[in-house]
Parts: sequence; C-alpha cells; structure tokens
Amino acid sequence: MTQFVSVDDVATLFHGRGSDRFFRELTAVIGDDFRRWPVFEKAARLASHSRDGVIELMPTSDGETYGFKYVNGHPRNTLDGKLTVTAFGVLADVASGYPTFISEMTLLTAMRTAATSALAAKALARPESRRMALIGAGAQAEFQALAFRAVLGIDTVAVYDVDAAATDKFMRNLRGVPGLRILRAGSVAEAVAGADIVTTATAAKTRATILTPDMIEPGMHINAIGGDCPGKTELAAAILERAKVFVEFPPQSRIEGEIQQMGEGFAVTELWRVLTGEAKGRTSATDVTVFDSVGFAIEDFSTLRYVRDIAVEAKVGSDLDLVPAPRDPKDLFGVMGRRTNLHERRELEALEA
Amino acid sequence: MTQFVSVDDVATLFHGRGSDRFFRELTAVIGDDFRRWPVFEKAARLASHSRDGVIELMPTSDGETYGFKYVNGHPRNTLDGKLTVTAFGVLADVASGYPTFISEMTLLTAMRTAATSALAAKALARPESRRMALIGAGAQAEFQALAFRAVLGIDTVAVYDVDAAATDKFMRNLRGVPGLRILRAGSVAEAVAGADIVTTATAAKTRATILTPDMIEPGMHINAIGGDCPGKTELAAAILERAKVFVEFPPQSRIEGEIQQMGEGFAVTELWRVLTGEAKGRTSATDVTVFDSVGFAIEDFSTLRYVRDIAVEAKVGSDLDLVPAPRDPKDLFGVMGRRTNLHERRELEALEA
Repeated sequence: MTQFVSVDDVATLFHGRGSDRFFRELTAVIGDDFRRWPVFEKAARLASHSRDGVIELMPTSDGETYGFKYVNGHPRNTLDGKLTVTAFGVLADVASGYPTFISEMTLLTAMRTAATSALAAKALARPESRRMALIGAGAQAEFQALAFRAVLGIDTVAVYDVDAAATDKFMRNLRGVPGLRILRAGSVAEAVAGADIVTTATAAKTRATILTPDMIEPGMHINAIGGDCPGKTELAAAILERAKVFVEFPPQSRIEGEIQQMGEGFAVTELWRVLTGEAKGRTSATDVTVFDSVGFAIEDFSTLRYVRDIAVEAKVGSDLDLVPAPRDPKDLFGVMGRRTNLHERRELEALEA
Repeated sequence: MTQFVSVDDVATLFHGRGSDRFFRELTAVIGDDFRRWPVFEKAARLASHSRDGVIELMPTSDGETYGFKYVNGHPRNTLDGKLTVTAFGVLADVASGYPTFISEMTLLTAMRTAATSALAAKALARPESRRMALIGAGAQAEFQALAFRAVLGIDTVAVYDVDAAATDKFMRNLRGVPGLRILRAGSVAEAVAGADIVTTATAAKTRATILTPDMIEPGMHINAIGGDCPGKTELAAAILERAKVFVEFPPQSRIEGEIQQMGEGFAVTELWRVLTGEAKGRTSATDVTVFDSVGFAIEDFSTLRYVRDIAVEAKVGSDLDLVPAPRDPKDLFGVMGRRTNLHERRELEALEA
C-alpha cells in the first residue's frame, strides 16, 4: 500500500504539532538537506507551457529516496476563484522503484517556501531582527509570518497589499497568535520603513518594481519570494547591484529569479554553501542581503520526507491501493483475480449450451 | 476532489467490460490519438538512473489535457518477489493546471502495451493472421494474448519461456478463454514456426538474440516489445536489415528500441503515419514487418483518458482530497480552518490567566 496524506491530513498535522514546532522542525529538515546539497541529483524542471500557465515536474533524488513534485502556475486562476498554484508530491524507493508516499503539496509548498525563507533569513539577517515588512498578503502570507515568528522570533509584521481585502484576510487569520503584532501599512514604503527583514510575496506575473532603492536601509535582509519565473520580478535591479545576493540553484535562479535582470556573470552565493560554512553570508551589520528564492526540488523532497515521518508518528493519513502486490511477480495478470476466466467460462458454457 | 482509480478498480473495470470490449475500445482510443500525433507535446522522458534501475516521468499534452506517467524499471526486483515495473498516471486540466485524475498504471501499462501492439499488428500484419508465437510468458503475456484475440481474431498462441513455471502460469490464467487455443512450445523455433505474428516479450536486460534470421518466414509480423531500454534488445540485427521497421517516436526508439543496434540513418517508418495513410505499411504478403515498440507517453495519455471515462460511466473509483478548495483563492491558510487560532487563543488565554 502507498501512504497518502490529504489536504485535510496536512491541516491536522500542522495544527496537531502547532505552527511553531512544525516550522522549526521543517526548517531543520530542509537545512539538513541543504548541508548535504552535493549528494542530490539536480535535474532541470520538466515544464509544459500553455497560454494560461505552466505545469511542471520537479524531481530529485539523494540516492536512497526519489521524490518529485507536480506543480502548476496559472496567474489568472484567481479570476475563476481557483488557486494560482496547486501541487502534489511523491516519494519512491530508489532501490526498488516503488512509489511509497503521495501527499498534497499545495499547502506544503507554501509551508516549505516559508520554512526555506526562514532558514535563509536565520543565516543571513541580523540576529536581532524582530520586525518584518510583508509586501503581499496573498496565499503565502500567513505561512511566512508564522515561520519567521517560529524560527527567528519575529514579533512585528507590517503588512501591505494593494488589495485591502487580502490584508483583511491576513489580519483575520493571524488575529490572536501570541507574541505577534500585525501592523497595517498604508504603502510599501510605510511597511518597509524600519524593518529588519522585508519579504516580497506578490503575485503579478510582470516585471514589477515592488521595492526601490530609496526604501532600502543598511542592514536589511530582503526575502524575495514572488519573483519566480521568467518575466516575473519584484526588485529594482539597483537593489541587487548594491546587495549580497544568495540563491538556491544558480542555473535555475538566473532564469526564474530576480537575477534574471542581471548579466550572466552577476555574482551570487549558493545558500547551501553559507549553511555548511564554506561561504560567507552577511559580513557586517550594514550589509544588505537578498535571498532571491525561486523554490527548488530539494526543498520539496525534505518537506515530503518530514510530512511522511510525522504522519506515521501521528497515525494520520490513509493507504492507497496504487501498486499491485502479486504473489508471483511474473503473474501480474493474476492480480486481477480469476474473474476473467469465470466470466468467460460462463460465456463459453452459454455458447456450448 | 481528484478522481482516483486503484489497482482493484482497474481489475473491476476490465472484468466488468470484458477483455474483448476493453481491448477493442482501448485500441481504438490509442489509434485516435496516434492519428492526431502532431498535436501532442513530445518531451523526452525525465529519467533518474540508479544502480538497480531507473525511475522515469513521461509527460505529454494535447493542449487541453496534460498527462504524465511515473514508471520504474528494476530488472532485479523479481529476486525479492517484486514487480520489475510499477507505474501510476495523472491527468490535469491544461487551462487551470489542476490535477483531475490519478490512476494505478502497472496493470494499465501492460494493457496499453498490448493494445498498442494490437493496433500496430492490425495495420501491419497480414489480415488473415490467426496464429501468434509468444516468446516470454512473463507479466505482459496474458495481456498480449487477449488483446490480439480481441483486435485481430488471433485464435492460436504458441508460447515459449525459458522458465517453465512462467508458461504454466500463462496457461493457467488463460485456460477457458473461449476461442483461444494455447500451445506449449519446446523452443523459440518451435513456437515461431508457422506463426503469422511473433511477439517477443522477454525481460532480461541484455543484448539478447531471441529471434535469429533462420526462424523468420516470409509475411511474418514481429511485435518486439521486450527491447525497450539502452542495452536491451531481442532481435538479431540481420532481421531488422531485411524487414520493414515501424516505430513510435524515432528519437526515443533509436536509443531504447531494437534499432539501437543499427546506424543512425537506418530507415524506419512512424506508426502514426501508417495509421493516417501518409506512409505505407506492408506492401506485399511476403514482407516481414517489425513493430519495434518501446512505449510512448501518448499511449499512456490515451489509456488514462479511456480509464477515466469508463470509471465515471461505471461509477468505479473514489475521490482524493488532493487539492484545497478555499472559498477565497487568496486565503490558502483559511483552508486549514480556524483551528490554529482557536488553539493558540487557548494558549494565549492560558498565558493571560
């Protein structure tokens, strides 16, 4: 049987564990995998583009476990009341090739993005960071706020969205979360002023300039998660020029990230090298650091393994009858039972009668 | 909700429809898609190779529906009582990117291979073909026999396998199928002698020479399905040199098929062009034709659509809670209910008390 974790199961696991513990553990698991980055198979995403969006398969393997995520990106879906991004993920045993685990990943993609953001910020932001500006109060927003609270101790979030209803929703969803003050800002500049960390998570599939150089203060860490496909960016190029820029996987980030605006030789540092101590992160309290995040298959892999393990521990989820289990591996046909014969024997008897 | 068809559901659908109707309908659906071959997106498989096997993702799209198959190939799995090939498949809506259908495909891969074999043989074999030699009585064997009976009216199958127990299993599974005579051959040559169609479906991952030129009689159609990855072939090169060779997708067949033994310029004809009438198949009753089949994503796509439709019709299958359905697409967090707030409000109340 193949282990299955549904949307409802993920909600149960998240609430059962509590947001703080969930995000701390998930961030730790992703961090462990980033620190063993070279062992992973890093394939390009397999993308199918269409008029309204893209469907991608994102596989990776650590030699023992294989994982992949199915994910779409359809910016105009919200016009029909649909999500712009949906996803599910699969783990398989490399030795046998058997798929062992399937999970929803729409919620988990938002969670792993938030956990990866927090992982990067923990390594790159000033340690005393407590105030975050959050530009964009869409589908990712609550997850970002909760992960930064859990992992960095962020206690104040100044939020701005061009859509006031999105900000309402964000404030409603996080009302009553202990130790988290939410401020409603009247503009991007107002939200950003005085922030230690700036998270940009806007959705428009355009070359946007959400942040301009005048808003950026010395020492800020910018967590840029909204620019994640060709033609979609959020930061002014001048910000990138003056900052230290950190990425997941450079070949992918140069196509999909903020740095698609820069030349091919533009210097970036891989986050995993900072985490292993091979490369430096921030070198002074006045550096401006940017995590130009586009999302990488290894983050999904770590998240699937984490959720698989806590689902077993919490006895949450169900079994799918996805792979036949014949008594004799050469007898695949036999899996279907003897019903064909019985059925056709009856036909034969009818013919003979 | 995402429609799900399990292993047991496929067995129910197959038996409910009856083998003949199932294979005739499936062959027709695959044939329809072959005849509109140019509309499909034809991506390379995304393969992850390991010591013991390979895991592949095989996507395609017709612009309206996207589909992919997960499939592994682990030849040594049988030593542990496991299947060498397992698979599952997914369909999605191109316009929204939402996954709509998941199905087991271990059984369905054997069925679609058999249906594609029958489709090709219907176009390429002599119309009066009634006798088939089947070399290899493994996991594919019964499906091949039943599809050829249903689609071509094959009434006699002479079977040979180096493993006598596999032949026993084959004969046991097909005992009592009306209008199908099974003969147990003592050798490959004995099975092949006098056959109209020769199907080779052996499993060894080696350059094997199952068929040699001396066995081949004028007018035979050879359905070569076992040679399907680099280093795995079943036919002597001399057979290919003298035959007319038909393939699914030449770029893939030249790497994975029997024709990996031949030079790059070796002439082949695409099956879909024969089906549309663009290219000739057999031109005389004495031609030797070879369908060098490796399996292509479009066959899986057709099969998934067919099974999705008959499952709806027969009310077979179940629903998976795989994709969240928020009331407001920006409120992904809200899908998880207000339990976080309640939970944490309780924490807060405890703190305040």
